[in-house]
Amino acid sequence: MGRWEPDAAGRLRAAALDLYLEHGYEQATVAQIAERAGVTARTFFRHFADKREVLFAGSEILEQEMAAALAASPAGASPLEAVAAALDAAAVLFGDNLAHSRRRQAVIAANAELRERELIKMARLADALTQGLRERGSADAEARLAAEVGIAVFRTSYQSWVDGPDGGDLGGVLRDSLAQVRGLTER
Amino acid sequence: MGRWEPDAAGRLRAAALDLYLEHGYEQATVAQIAERAGVTARTFFRHFADKREVLFAGSEILEQEMAAALAASPAGASPLEAVAAALDAAAVLFGDNLAHSRRRQAVIAANAELRERELIKMARLADALTQGLRERGSADAEARLAAEVGIAVFRTSYQSWVDGPDGGDLGGVLRDSLAQVRGLTER
Repeated sequence: MGRWEPDAAGRLRAAALDLYLEHGYEQATVAQIAERAGVTARTFFRHFADKREVLFAGSEILEQEMAAALAASPAGASPLEAVAAALDAAAVLFGDNLAHSRRRQAVIAANAELRERELIKMARLADALTQGLRERGSADAEARLAAEVGIAVFRTSYQSWVDGPDGGDLGGVLRDSLAQVRGLTER
Repeated sequence: MGRWEPDAAGRLRAAALDLYLEHGYEQATVAQIAERAGVTARTFFRHFADKREVLFAGSEILEQEMAAALAASPAGASPLEAVAAALDAAAVLFGDNLAHSRRRQAVIAANAELRERELIKMARLADALTQGLRERGSADAEARLAAEVGIAVFRTSYQSWVDGPDGGDLGGVLRDSLAQVRGLTER
């Protein structure tokens, strides 16, 4: 058991990414993933519904953390400030695992079905942020707009971070991107 | 042949929306759509690949018109001004057909597969605008961000327009939304 793979779920995730990158997502089987992780297929299915969910199981945690950070932002914060707090939470969650994010992104970029799944997850995230902003008192259209702009910033920043140099700071990229939105509207 | 349905494609589109709204998208068949439009199934397939594409055939035109407007905006225009020109082109394309857009949106909202398809089309549109901005000299990250913000504005405005009162002005809603993005970043 390696230092960075202390648990079965983590080992399965790493094994799945290895196989998806080596042989392609379509070719890899659950049996192969379990074998490489040193667990049984039964253990795989205790953690993940299928081989696709190995890549997306983190989405629920991301949504929960971002929604919680948005809800916890000060009452006087503007909608976009509340969204910025949610983006900071995303940076905390992902920010220290650039190597893993790069590998995951490479797998998703290579497969149309996975790219679509990622879009759907991002749309759900936008819905969750919209709902959170409504609960803070934003009107529907304002909540939707601020949430969608937040997701635009998140997607763009995440891609820049993954494509960028080793040691990149996701939180910093996110804050720069938010500032850039302001710059875009000012010109 | 009705005044507002002069062509087979238009009659097929209207007949399909009728059936999707009356009986649900899943239940409707190409044979039923063709029959209601007063054409043969063969004519249907001359215009559309399948019953889903009746709803999405306009996406290519939308992408072409928006990309052309972006490319035609003045050389000195900022990325977001170029995106605004693309949004104006979208308003010209859709703006005079609120009733049709409402019906189409109701069908899509009721069906998960169609909502996913719409997300994919929007992502392609964002890619096209990103590419157009790059060709105008924007750096990758700036182009992506401006395009994604533009699509956020488009999706939000389109929904507000469809949900809003009869006689609503899509172009006006789009311009208000763009201004609102600026407001969001200023607070």
